[in-house]
Amino acid sequence: MTRSLGVCYYPEHWPETQWPEDAARMAASGLTWVRIGEFAWSRLEPAPGKLDFDWLDRAIDVLGRAGLKVVLGTPTATPPRWMLDRHPDMLAVDAAGRPRKFGSRRHYCFSHRGYLAECKRIVALLAERYGANPHVAAWQTDNEYGCHDTILSYSDAARAAFRDWLAQRYQSPDALNRAWGNVFWSMEYSGFDQIDLPNLTVTEANPAHVMDFRRFASDQVVAFNRAQVDILRRYTRAPVAHNYMGRITEFDHYAVGADLDIASWDSYPIGFLSDRLEATDAHKADFLRQGDPDFQAFHHDLYRAVGRGRWWVMEQQPGPVNWAPYNPAPLPGMVRLWTWEAFAHGAEAVLYFRWRQAPFGQEQMHAGLLRPDSEPAPGLAEVETVARELADAPMAQAAPADVALVFDYASAWAWDTQPQGADFDYFRLCFAWYRALRRMGLNIDIISPDTDDLSQWKLVLAPGLFTLPDTLRAALPSCSGAVVFGPRANSRRPDFSIPPDLGPSLPGLDARVARVESLPPGSALPLANGGQFVHWAEELEGKAVVVLLREDNRAAMVRAGGLYYLGGWPSDATLFSILSDLCAAQGIATRDLPSALRTRSDGKSRFWFNHGASALEWEGLHLPPASMLRVPA
Amino acid sequence: MTRSLGVCYYPEHWPETQWPEDAARMAASGLTWVRIGEFAWSRLEPAPGKLDFDWLDRAIDVLGRAGLKVVLGTPTATPPRWMLDRHPDMLAVDAAGRPRKFGSRRHYCFSHRGYLAECKRIVALLAERYGANPHVAAWQTDNEYGCHDTILSYSDAARAAFRDWLAQRYQSPDALNRAWGNVFWSMEYSGFDQIDLPNLTVTEANPAHVMDFRRFASDQVVAFNRAQVDILRRYTRAPVAHNYMGRITEFDHYAVGADLDIASWDSYPIGFLSDRLEATDAHKADFLRQGDPDFQAFHHDLYRAVGRGRWWVMEQQPGPVNWAPYNPAPLPGMVRLWTWEAFAHGAEAVLYFRWRQAPFGQEQMHAGLLRPDSEPAPGLAEVETVARELADAPMAQAAPADVALVFDYASAWAWDTQPQGADFDYFRLCFAWYRALRRMGLNIDIISPDTDDLSQWKLVLAPGLFTLPDTLRAALPSCSGAVVFGPRANSRRPDFSIPPDLGPSLPGLDARVARVESLPPGSALPLANGGQFVHWAEELEGKAVVVLLREDNRAAMVRAGGLYYLGGWPSDATLFSILSDLCAAQGIATRDLPSALRTRSDGKSRFWFNHGASALEWEGLHLPPASMLRVPA
Amino acid sequence: MTRSLGVCYYPEHWPETQWPEDAARMAASGLTWVRIGEFAWSRLEPAPGKLDFDWLDRAIDVLGRAGLKVVLGTPTATPPRWMLDRHPDMLAVDAAGRPRKFGSRRHYCFSHRGYLAECKRIVALLAERYGANPHVAAWQTDNEYGCHDTILSYSDAARAAFRDWLAQRYQSPDALNRAWGNVFWSMEYSGFDQIDLPNLTVTEANPAHVMDFRRFASDQVVAFNRAQVDILRRYTRAPVAHNYMGRITEFDHYAVGADLDIASWDSYPIGFLSDRLEATDAHKADFLRQGDPDFQAFHHDLYRAVGRGRWWVMEQQPGPVNWAPYNPAPLPGMVRLWTWEAFAHGAEAVLYFRWRQAPFGQEQMHAGLLRPDSEPAPGLAEVETVARELADAPMAQAAPADVALVFDYASAWAWDTQPQGADFDYFRLCFAWYRALRRMGLNIDIISPDTDDLSQWKLVLAPGLFTLPDTLRAALPSCSGAVVFGPRANSRRPDFSIPPDLGPSLPGLDARVARVESLPPGSALPLANGGQFVHWAEELEGKAVVVLLREDNRAAMVRAGGLYYLGGWPSDATLFSILSDLCAAQGIATRDLPSALRTRSDGKSRFWFNHGASALEWEGLHLPPASMLRVPA
Repeated sequence: MTRSLGVCYYPEHWPETQWPEDAARMAASGLTWVRIGEFAWSRLEPAPGKLDFDWLDRAIDVLGRAGLKVVLGTPTATPPRWMLDRHPDMLAVDAAGRPRKFGSRRHYCFSHRGYLAECKRIVALLAERYGANPHVAAWQTDNEYGCHDTILSYSDAARAAFRDWLAQRYQSPDALNRAWGNVFWSMEYSGFDQIDLPNLTVTEANPAHVMDFRRFASDQVVAFNRAQVDILRRYTRAPVAHNYMGRITEFDHYAVGADLDIASWDSYPIGFLSDRLEATDAHKADFLRQGDPDFQAFHHDLYRAVGRGRWWVMEQQPGPVNWAPYNPAPLPGMVRLWTWEAFAHGAEAVLYFRWRQAPFGQEQMHAGLLRPDSEPAPGLAEVETVARELADAPMAQAAPADVALVFDYASAWAWDTQPQGADFDYFRLCFAWYRALRRMGLNIDIISPDTDDLSQWKLVLAPGLFTLPDTLRAALPSCSGAVVFGPRANSRRPDFSIPPDLGPSLPGLDARVARVESLPPGSALPLANGGQFVHWAEELEGKAVVVLLREDNRAAMVRAGGLYYLGGWPSDATLFSILSDLCAAQGIATRDLPSALRTRSDGKSRFWFNHGASALEWEGLHLPPASMLRVPA
Repeated sequence: MTRSLGVCYYPEHWPETQWPEDAARMAASGLTWVRIGEFAWSRLEPAPGKLDFDWLDRAIDVLGRAGLKVVLGTPTATPPRWMLDRHPDMLAVDAAGRPRKFGSRRHYCFSHRGYLAECKRIVALLAERYGANPHVAAWQTDNEYGCHDTILSYSDAARAAFRDWLAQRYQSPDALNRAWGNVFWSMEYSGFDQIDLPNLTVTEANPAHVMDFRRFASDQVVAFNRAQVDILRRYTRAPVAHNYMGRITEFDHYAVGADLDIASWDSYPIGFLSDRLEATDAHKADFLRQGDPDFQAFHHDLYRAVGRGRWWVMEQQPGPVNWAPYNPAPLPGMVRLWTWEAFAHGAEAVLYFRWRQAPFGQEQMHAGLLRPDSEPAPGLAEVETVARELADAPMAQAAPADVALVFDYASAWAWDTQPQGADFDYFRLCFAWYRALRRMGLNIDIISPDTDDLSQWKLVLAPGLFTLPDTLRAALPSCSGAVVFGPRANSRRPDFSIPPDLGPSLPGLDARVARVESLPPGSALPLANGGQFVHWAEELEGKAVVVLLREDNRAAMVRAGGLYYLGGWPSDATLFSILSDLCAAQGIATRDLPSALRTRSDGKSRFWFNHGASALEWEGLHLPPASMLRVPA
Repeated sequence: MTRSLGVCYYPEHWPETQWPEDAARMAASGLTWVRIGEFAWSRLEPAPGKLDFDWLDRAIDVLGRAGLKVVLGTPTATPPRWMLDRHPDMLAVDAAGRPRKFGSRRHYCFSHRGYLAECKRIVALLAERYGANPHVAAWQTDNEYGCHDTILSYSDAARAAFRDWLAQRYQSPDALNRAWGNVFWSMEYSGFDQIDLPNLTVTEANPAHVMDFRRFASDQVVAFNRAQVDILRRYTRAPVAHNYMGRITEFDHYAVGADLDIASWDSYPIGFLSDRLEATDAHKADFLRQGDPDFQAFHHDLYRAVGRGRWWVMEQQPGPVNWAPYNPAPLPGMVRLWTWEAFAHGAEAVLYFRWRQAPFGQEQMHAGLLRPDSEPAPGLAEVETVARELADAPMAQAAPADVALVFDYASAWAWDTQPQGADFDYFRLCFAWYRALRRMGLNIDIISPDTDDLSQWKLVLAPGLFTLPDTLRAALPSCSGAVVFGPRANSRRPDFSIPPDLGPSLPGLDARVARVESLPPGSALPLANGGQFVHWAEELEGKAVVVLLREDNRAAMVRAGGLYYLGGWPSDATLFSILSDLCAAQGIATRDLPSALRTRSDGKSRFWFNHGASALEWEGLHLPPASMLRVPA
């Protein structure tokens, strides 16, 4: 596997006379890839049917001749203003019932058929023209599905499509009524056309209703993406990617990924720390200019699964951004660190966003590798360093992990639908488990809930997996080590009803969840060993072997052979202790790393990452602040 | 008076084959009452005019033959989906102008005439069929008026009805303009059809306008309920109840109650602690799994007044619920404690919600007496204990109180309309006074502001009573002890104008409120005796005898004979001191109980309730955690 | 210059028989001015075209004959209800798309042509009738433009007017597309009628789009006001004022003021402290009953600039108000202090709001000089004291200042449009600079960004001035002392694009802003001298002389001769230190006053203001709590 660098570029933003110099500088900086075109619809088709691809021909030619490989994006994330005249009802509608207006981006409803047809048309035109272009070495569909809360639309188009989807799924209103339990509160329907979207109800809508809406919304994204991929495949053999955004869980990334060749994502460590991470103020202050030490790694491991091994960072933060509540500048060294961390986790390519900071538009405060005056921004020198380091030292192909963590989008929707505690969230739960493993210094694989073979891992963790898919259930025996299910795992059947045996209904494990409780911040349920559950605790019944007790002598964790069930949400310290013991039992060697230090091995090398603002000494190594050190594994 | 137990049951949720066993288990558990039917409209009338009452016949028969008495609910809280096709404009509209959609419950506007007619139709059908049924021993109208913020609707139907209501009240626009002071800001109307609902105004609407809207909204509920009661009376002699929800103040419960035989309410101590109580984090942590020690008692005493002596708990929390921000499980013992507390306060019956936890629908996380797998939930054993204890030891008929607290819904609306301090609330004020009295170990009566005889109490308290009704004014001499009015009492005339003498305008009391101020959290106004006012302080004038001074030597409390006026919102400690002194002056013996310990006497027995998670020793008694102890009075 | 007192009065609220007594008492209390009429449209024109000015004739006559001078307000802030029947689409629309309903005030959209015509009609009628009335000695247009968030309207009328405004400004869609950078995200327009208002977009709208909308919205206010002034000028020689509200920055007060003779504002110190000041809880507690010591002074100095020397306080808080989150009563002495502070800053007149507290309407809890029962409220005696003091001791004409602070409304919009840090605000920045200067005991001038001569000041400060106007740039050499630009100064061109040289692009100063970062609360960037930047820090480049270093050895402040640029937002202590040094360098003597003590000199007298609740000793003076002391300068 080659590891390469690249950059996002918008030739339409700059005078054509500047393109050759830009291309030459990119190449000279050690960049290989250049992504273009994904927001350029208004320049490709300035008026309906009036096409102007010449400039793109020339841009690709200039870039290609400089030795760069082009990733060409389909421009469907930014329909031009004239599209709205043709399809006035194409706008997504928010949960309050308001159309989301033109004037930024992603202002379309995934369920609008007219807009879908327009997307197919423009993708076909692009694919036909550039599918065989030797410089176009990869494609990207749309951009950042789900960014700005754009998956859930409450439009007329969405309602109509949802009714169709339900009719397909349930065939009869009676079947739907039974599945949803609509006898409750007289919510029964006599026809699919009576069913509305589950927003603006007086109190919460039926969770089964909400959950089907969430499934539907995800399916619409998958279908939208597939329509583009299907067209691209007809004209090109280049790999097709989508680039996902961090901590977006409103659609099933695996399902979209199944139609792609490459998964990519957008890594904005400092923006994410400020914008989308639950953490203490102290933690956020410690990592103010570095980002969280585990957040990117989680996504790296996630997209390795989504891309079935092939994954990129399509947009890597190179400096301060514009969109988070606060936007500090990265510490010197972090751009290099982030890039190497992606490679250590298996990225094929890391592209920076963007080449030159634009002096206009919504992202004018978003740093690039160049400043608006074309001078190098501080990140560029770090990129050049990485390019040299990469050239000097190839990496191993594979990076084996002993531990796998199941991450499931449907569970995220289920927790959203029924959090039961005001601040509960599935991502937050999984991320806490992931962080505990990272603190142990382990390589981790994130895996889909549809994984059908667990034989390669010694320890498989599945906290919060609301409904256990048949595939994973069938795969359980394939794991020779331990499989640990966590709180709320398999607590619902696919129709969102409580299982007759109350769950978790795990094969061979005699354990039932007799009762659950959610706890506010500051409250905890003590365990017998000094640990504690926070947020969530379950009362377990059954004859399974108890491996951990609550202080009230109820079971906290039980097992049957290698199958474990943990009936609560452990505090971070308790979780570390529990998972450490499980690792030890499986013969997995662990560390106890300081919060700023992280590591990953590719089998040949061990990479050490000091995310801290201070130097660290560890295992005889000296790690300067914000640094990566690579040693033989 | 008999004291009995019961349960809420939904035969339509379960296979008919299960009904006999359920009924037998209820009876065997010591339950007498079973409430059914209140959400079953879609099963009673699956399509417009297509009636199916047979299953209900059979359910009543099964339950009745098991020895249970049925409370039959009218199903008007959950109109079926087809109702919306017949009356598309029946939906309530929220303050932002958005219709509140179908998909949960209570999605109707009280002012919609078409829906009212449908309600009358279904109630008449039910009453005709079951009015003389020997097993149907009580009726319930609708369910939880006001739950989910459903009293105030800003629909077209509400606007039209409000205009009619105003035309009735004022007869001419000029009279309304004068009453409201519409000359202010040129708000004068020349016709009733010019008057809109007071939402979405640029800044606050005229408080007189808002207050009339609040009165109107309450009247609509009273009329809606009365329409049902009037029909039921034609067909049945069984008592009619409505069950109210905790801390709902948007309509006048006394006025609804005047048409009922029994008031009942829904007691969810742990849900309320999390969801609708102002308290410190420490207090909430102390009572996390017990609920607040005074919140239920307040409502017990309130509904005793609303029901003119006859009141029930129609829904008693038996375990964790689903709807609060956080939902912990009750400590062992609390279900028994809560039940006994209701009886000690005079409840005729306590019904638990619900029999079996439903595996589907919005309340699938709401515990019942049985788990979804039909095994007993922890609460059931405590219910059985209470049933045995009740059988062993009957209670006294009456429970005299020396102290009465006036609670007035119109004052709640007035405080909402014009809080003057951002976090001020009438319930909060009254509850602070109530808690102080409870801490003294007193029996308390809550009374309506229309009480016409005060002779039975030694001390009557009326904090925050915005407008003193003529009836209560006339009754003041009937009190041989003391009557204490508190901050803002009688500060407005019925038209919401400031009285010409500035208030409180109490007979024989020469005191005027010269100026008031509201204070933010953390600020206080010191009193001369070391106490303090918080939230609110008034500068009093006049020649009334000063019984308490502020540190600035202004009067804090004044009196004329047994009539007192307290010009501020005392801190909890100050309030306890003031009310203790008043009790002592009236010869009322008081205690100073720890925060977890509460008591009530029925004249024959004294009941001690330890709401704490730790054991207590008190007056020679040992009270285990979460326990009730009954001793001779 | 005379200094005089006055009061706001609403004859339409009171029986005509009471007017003479009211007028006599006003005059006897030492009041000279009486403002009337500004909310009386419904009484002047009870039905469309049905005029009734007789009562106003009589009211003016009564007041005038008592020796009072009338300020007559145009009643356009409160269109009567019938106006809505004539112009149903005249309502402003909020950012969520909801019309702002009738029922309070200011419910009009500045862009509605029909309403503007109605305003011209009523103003012409008033001007014609009273323009030459000898008792009408001043006029006020409308009232409090912008109060209750009423500048930005998203109505159809506003959209149409915005399109016209853009067409005027850009002439062609292509020019607009280029200026806005609409190639970004395919936001290009082919016609002005495609452009919508920038609300409800999926993510943020183009900042250039938003900024033009802000400019447009301000221009609409200016035009609306000018239409009234133009009519008044035709009929009267009396001066014309508008009274502005505190901390309203949504329109350009200077531009409105350019058409006026007098600027006036509404000084509610205690309301502002609670409602619109960023400060610690401790600070707010210290000044609970006094208001912030610098907030009023800032506005005094601001409106002196807006009124080009002639300014009033049109509404002075005389007691507790109704509209802030919490509404404490002023400490005794504060009404006198506030009044004298206004005079010390140059006010010609201070009018109190209002004569008698109204017993009805939205402001029934707003204190007046009289209580509702016509007894004197506590403030009245302080007013009478000031009247006596004023009579005894005239003041100087001019009050020279060594220091000027540029305050620019367009910069406020720019910071709103692109704060880059979640809690950043231009007013907050400028107020911090102002407070530091006040702490030094200095007289300060606030000046417009269009000031063309800086020769009268030794030190001119311009923090956060987003775009440097040509006039001010040209005036820079006129300053013989120092001119200090602060963070973000001149960081954008008028089209909101980043300058090609990155800014601040100051003449002769070789400095570029290479990179910026925003910091969350609690984070800081240390300076070499022990100080720190908070909120905002910039990395500076260039060969300008470095006068302050960051701890990382980058430049924090640079200079070229007397031109300085400060690349960050200093903490309050750091700012005090920096500005003290700059003052010292310019030979300006400074003090270091306690937080409650402030001073101002008019050249002849020095006024000391103790805003604290405790007495102070300072420079040999004894200052009781809440007091003003005047000593020879």
